[in-house]
Amino acid sequence: MESSIVIAIGDELLLGQTLDTNSAWIGKHMSDWGCPVVKRYTVSDTREGILSTLNLAIEEADIVLITGGLGPTRDDITKKVLAEFFSVDLVFSEPAWYWIEDYFHKRGRTASALHRMQCYLPSNVQLLENAMGTAPGMLFEWGTKKIISMPGVPYEMKYIMENGVYPIVKNHSSFQILHRTLRTFGLPESQIAERLVNIEDQLPKDCGIAYLPSLGEVKLRVTVRGKKEHALLEILDKICRDVEACIEDCMYGYDEDNLESVVGRILESRGAMVGFAESCTGGKIASRMVSQPGSSRYFFGGLVSYSNEMKTRLLGVDEKILKEYGAVSEPVALAMLEGLFERMSIQYGLSITGIAGPSGGSPEKPVGTAFIAVGKPGEVEVHAISFNKDRAMNMEYFSNTALNLLRKFLMKG
Amino acid sequence: MESSIVIAIGDELLLGQTLDTNSAWIGKHMSDWGCPVVKRYTVSDTREGILSTLNLAIEEADIVLITGGLGPTRDDITKKVLAEFFSVDLVFSEPAWYWIEDYFHKRGRTASALHRMQCYLPSNVQLLENAMGTAPGMLFEWGTKKIISMPGVPYEMKYIMENGVYPIVKNHSSFQILHRTLRTFGLPESQIAERLVNIEDQLPKDCGIAYLPSLGEVKLRVTVRGKKEHALLEILDKICRDVEACIEDCMYGYDEDNLESVVGRILESRGAMVGFAESCTGGKIASRMVSQPGSSRYFFGGLVSYSNEMKTRLLGVDEKILKEYGAVSEPVALAMLEGLFERMSIQYGLSITGIAGPSGGSPEKPVGTAFIAVGKPGEVEVHAISFNKDRAMNMEYFSNTALNLLRKFLMKG
Repeated sequence: MESSIVIAIGDELLLGQTLDTNSAWIGKHMSDWGCPVVKRYTVSDTREGILSTLNLAIEEADIVLITGGLGPTRDDITKKVLAEFFSVDLVFSEPAWYWIEDYFHKRGRTASALHRMQCYLPSNVQLLENAMGTAPGMLFEWGTKKIISMPGVPYEMKYIMENGVYPIVKNHSSFQILHRTLRTFGLPESQIAERLVNIEDQLPKDCGIAYLPSLGEVKLRVTVRGKKEHALLEILDKICRDVEACIEDCMYGYDEDNLESVVGRILESRGAMVGFAESCTGGKIASRMVSQPGSSRYFFGGLVSYSNEMKTRLLGVDEKILKEYGAVSEPVALAMLEGLFERMSIQYGLSITGIAGPSGGSPEKPVGTAFIAVGKPGEVEVHAISFNKDRAMNMEYFSNTALNLLRKFLMKG
Repeated sequence: MESSIVIAIGDELLLGQTLDTNSAWIGKHMSDWGCPVVKRYTVSDTREGILSTLNLAIEEADIVLITGGLGPTRDDITKKVLAEFFSVDLVFSEPAWYWIEDYFHKRGRTASALHRMQCYLPSNVQLLENAMGTAPGMLFEWGTKKIISMPGVPYEMKYIMENGVYPIVKNHSSFQILHRTLRTFGLPESQIAERLVNIEDQLPKDCGIAYLPSLGEVKLRVTVRGKKEHALLEILDKICRDVEACIEDCMYGYDEDNLESVVGRILESRGAMVGFAESCTGGKIASRMVSQPGSSRYFFGGLVSYSNEMKTRLLGVDEKILKEYGAVSEPVALAMLEGLFERMSIQYGLSITGIAGPSGGSPEKPVGTAFIAVGKPGEVEVHAISFNKDRAMNMEYFSNTALNLLRKFLMKG
């Protein structure tokens, strides 16, 4: 089990109506389990599309993972095509029907005729339990290779992967791939690359550094590959130490870290609470904090002061300041932060006011301008930033930058 | 120009470290432009991976769109492989260098040696302008077919697609595909399918209905295909009318509509303002409202009352109610809503308190329990809901359901 291929089925994926988060999840886990995804096919809900791809994929890897096309509705034809591929019949599966009836029984509902139809499966199938839905995973053997078909609903796919596929994949792999991601914020990709020229020139064979830039952030993915018995972790540690020494000033974390989790960890280690006042980001920064489990230990709350009246009535921003400087200004950002300190039981605070666009800009304050204040009572700082992509990207960049400024403030003291 | 294929290059896509939003965007636009994506290959940053896929893809469609692998760092090898595919040399492109120098000049920066390296391009290239970054799009002719290579940075790719690729694709297609998405909330996929059995049995040839379920929502994508001169829009209208008649009770919008845009439209049409008090969703509902351009016309603001102290101090929830019923309870949801009405200049309000998990549940109030209150001063209603997936999904489902309850309340009066 050295390599795997994903076949994602669905016109909605090709048409861009659904974002393929499943394939990313599978890619990450199969790599962690030692059987990386080496190629992905995204194909239409048609007999020809699925069949021709299956014929290619089975030659190219040890495991073929198929997602999509197993629901109760008639746009799903995967099972028929699989039966054709294996030259077997579709037969009624009693265990599959038992699972479906049990699934509905537990929820006080009754399975329908459509669900009964779902139980006609290729006769060579081995079922993989799906406790999250009605369509079981299907495992097929093909010589030494395996084909696994799963529904497209993300949490059903994940259940089958973790409970059915993981035991098959794990321990069969002789190769190993290790990755570590170093997360940086604030330095452009090309500047990081210049700092790393010497390190990249001297990288050992089968090792690599990839650059993954997004809004203000660059992730550096360091990869080492080799036989399991080799000292891969040592090699990875060495490369990462060398890289880190070059990017200390902009590096904030590893792997699954993100700005909110790093900020949360610092706050929690100090037993400190934080609160936010957000105008242009509309609660996005607060919701990112709350997305972290356990955030109630350090997140007091937030005020989404989108209207001027909200700023004056609920945050106590002086109307005169709003009139004199405008809602998007340094004094208003500072007044919002002071308002937080007066109203919340917090040790640290953050406020932001800006223009996300597409309208609302002016010559001296164009769309993409924002003012961010961070600090603690008695010690605050305010930063003017500017960025101009579309509304959603501006809001994302504002949120990223605000959290990074808060992180840097916390690191100082 | 009947069909296109996407080749997305990047180990980070296969490893699941980056979600492939580019391919979804391209899929949507190429379909709208009459040259739908019929297959997508996601391949590794290797010579073999790219070359073998290019050989397959060029046989299968009229346009091959390549994304990724054009940045300034050394993990990008696409250009070399393209030169090999066409059997041409990489030569220094003066126009490409001019664009890069100009790009940096406008930003008060200077191009580096790495950027100069970027200008070595296959000699048969035609450049497509990229005003958003340093790597231009590359167009190659191959008989009657076209291969277009673009950088992987989303806003750069979009610029090249809209300004360079669109003029090539548009007007060359003789076929047409029309889609309409009907958006529903609250009814399971299988129940919708049962209602539509007769309609689906009688669908004209080359027409289809696909079901795209997500958290509480099912999108129905109706597709009709045919030659341009045929009356496709009439056929699409007829099918959609028939479907809509069966799902009136759960349908809320079309195509790019979402719950926040629909709620926003109703509020704006009434000149009414709304405000939110969010506990377990942490500002997610507010940030969804604010994601809509122009939301300042109907969104007053929000309180992210994550801690109990925030609920009492900033929302005026009585401590006795919190003690007697607990923070996650019907009386607290109602008190939060009343607190909003007292503090904000709003005609409508929404409050939510719940347990997103993974911890914090109890036997009578398990993880996934939430109470949502919606209404206007003098007329409020509160709903208990229950859902239990992971923290992020629970928060998403809570947000969806809250917005749908607000929408239904607004529709009543």
